[in-house]
Amino acid sequence: MINNNDFRIREIIYSLKSSPIRNVANSVIGKKDIIPLYFGETDITTPSFISEAMKTALDKGHTFYSANQGVSELIETISSYSSELHKKNISTSRIMVTSAGMNALMITSEALINPNDKVICVTPVWPNFMRCIEIMGGNIIEIPLTHSEKNNNWELNLEEIKKNIKNAKAIYINTPNNPTGWVMSRNEQIEILELCRKEKVWVISDEVYERIIYDRKVAPSFLDISKEDDLLIVVNSFSKSWAMTGWRLGWMTIPNGLINIFEKLNEFNVASPSSPAQHAGVIAIKEGEKFIKKMINDLKISRSVTIKHLNNFSRVIFPNSEAAFYAYFKIKDISDSEKFCFDTLQSTGVGLAPGTSFGNGGERWIRICYAKSPNLLNKAFEKLKPVLS
Amino acid sequence: MINNNDFRIREIIYSLKSSPIRNVANSVIGKKDIIPLYFGETDITTPSFISEAMKTALDKGHTFYSANQGVSELIETISSYSSELHKKNISTSRIMVTSAGMNALMITSEALINPNDKVICVTPVWPNFMRCIEIMGGNIIEIPLTHSEKNNNWELNLEEIKKNIKNAKAIYINTPNNPTGWVMSRNEQIEILELCRKEKVWVISDEVYERIIYDRKVAPSFLDISKEDDLLIVVNSFSKSWAMTGWRLGWMTIPNGLINIFEKLNEFNVASPSSPAQHAGVIAIKEGEKFIKKMINDLKISRSVTIKHLNNFSRVIFPNSEAAFYAYFKIKDISDSEKFCFDTLQSTGVGLAPGTSFGNGGERWIRICYAKSPNLLNKAFEKLKPVLS
Repeated sequence: MINNNDFRIREIIYSLKSSPIRNVANSVIGKKDIIPLYFGETDITTPSFISEAMKTALDKGHTFYSANQGVSELIETISSYSSELHKKNISTSRIMVTSAGMNALMITSEALINPNDKVICVTPVWPNFMRCIEIMGGNIIEIPLTHSEKNNNWELNLEEIKKNIKNAKAIYINTPNNPTGWVMSRNEQIEILELCRKEKVWVISDEVYERIIYDRKVAPSFLDISKEDDLLIVVNSFSKSWAMTGWRLGWMTIPNGLINIFEKLNEFNVASPSSPAQHAGVIAIKEGEKFIKKMINDLKISRSVTIKHLNNFSRVIFPNSEAAFYAYFKIKDISDSEKFCFDTLQSTGVGLAPGTSFGNGGERWIRICYAKSPNLLNKAFEKLKPVLS
Repeated sequence: MINNNDFRIREIIYSLKSSPIRNVANSVIGKKDIIPLYFGETDITTPSFISEAMKTALDKGHTFYSANQGVSELIETISSYSSELHKKNISTSRIMVTSAGMNALMITSEALINPNDKVICVTPVWPNFMRCIEIMGGNIIEIPLTHSEKNNNWELNLEEIKKNIKNAKAIYINTPNNPTGWVMSRNEQIEILELCRKEKVWVISDEVYERIIYDRKVAPSFLDISKEDDLLIVVNSFSKSWAMTGWRLGWMTIPNGLINIFEKLNEFNVASPSSPAQHAGVIAIKEGEKFIKKMINDLKISRSVTIKHLNNFSRVIFPNSEAAFYAYFKIKDISDSEKFCFDTLQSTGVGLAPGTSFGNGGERWIRICYAKSPNLLNKAFEKLKPVLS
């Protein structure tokens, strides 16, 4: 690591916060017998019907650039899927395929964030969009969810959002939420949307976990309640619902009339997403419902194993969660979650993610990804017993 | 297309120049019997040994996130390949795999360009990096190559570069050049590098056509003459050398000591390039030399077919070119190349790219990509005869 900026790298990039999760994980690179619960992915490889579709695409010669918006068959497939899921017509002119949800968020920042623009971020949250805002020179207003001790759940601080909305260019909400598993309610979505309409503020809704929910088919989406000319961008991904993290494929739903603007940004970011991956994406959506169902059933089992274990530790508070595949819990008597994760990894070999990864106020909080087999989870909690008891 | 900016999109994004090539191509979407010479790709699908390697990667379960820097086997393979090609050690700590050369350029802009920073761009040039500069709020100083009528070749305007270098944060050079086929000489590279060292200005060298050259194995590279701590970023791609345009895989070579900075930017742009594609990239490099040789031989034939045809038209001036797979030629008596391309496409069905795509001063210039079969080229020139004669 360089010690001073002889290289004339932008100050903001030079000092951009790297991921505490990566810091923890990097401390054991190459080491064996690590149980990695820090990263946000399941331990199952992409189902073979999707991989086979990519192979077919290669055999058919789909190895050239696609249009900036994406392969038309995939755009149509996403449009149908999304229209059915959200019970309204989401036209193809509102869909742009991207190189993963991540790049959709980078493109969103490029489109909206001028230097010193302010963006409200509801935290704790997967931090990458906050870093995109900073890369574009914007500022973050963190408005944390409140952990209600009475109800042991997460609650939106709507009053604080109302106070700050006038000064903001956008509000970023990740629902279902990584790391907490919190799901924004329909009423809250309506209130936020009304507020943003009034103040001409963008809603950036990161809904990549919309299908990873345990008591219904899909989480409430801003798409359900919005009009096609609302200042709304909804980001989605193939990574979580179809176990395709390594494929880098996602999409964004944008207001009607803006596709030319966003096509330009796709062109200048990655030109167009991978062509063979896009063809496989068609099959993932069309034939993937059985897979999603099975995955959710498996996740339910992993989830109850995790809850059972966490409830055994009196130092641990695990607020109720409804969705995604994380347990975000507080350890009452620690004060430096990053150090706790480093130490735990050294002493137990179990990789945890520190709460400081997800915004301010995470010093006592830990995230684990429970999208693993019950066997592995049991083994992990056995090892964690000494440090959590 | 929206008519006013009700959406509060950033002004610079709203007015960002879209590609005149795309404008021309979009005018015939869905139309049959078009001969598309406008885009920069060959008409051959990715060779099967590379596709087979991707299939194997899928079968092996390489469907998870990779490290931000890339898959270690690919980083090592690129390091060896590049070290051998440029006859010096290019260490793995200087290589970052990216989602195509395009994303490497976007990341470069994010790392270096503060609002109002100036970047010298040697034009005519593939315009996408200029748009990246603008997205980051930077300004472009175009310094065109001079078309010497005496020698009928392209010449670098070193004096103009010297005059402007003090005010610049970086200089962007694409050599071998798209669209002209110009290749920067070793002496010019040495002069530019010395100048930039003195003024602490970054050299951004886009060398994606380094292997598409007809009289030697590889074009002169800034890597040949630089030290590992020079302010130099070299961008490369799998798209052209291995016919992998649709795969979105490339890499950048950066100064030693900066990998942590650039890994962060990979994380916040696409996280990591496609895992199965990266595994195929290993095989592309290791087993691809025979393919490159065959492709260059085929391109030589297409090139001479093109030259023969262009020389038949007295209105056409085609400056000598040494590399890449484009013919960039002037039509003496036109004044609006974009209109010429629209009209030609309508009347002949042959897709040409207007010179205005590549910077200022392209009003009389046309680019074609000749990476097509001689048969198709003959057919295209037969159709073009009425408008070029």
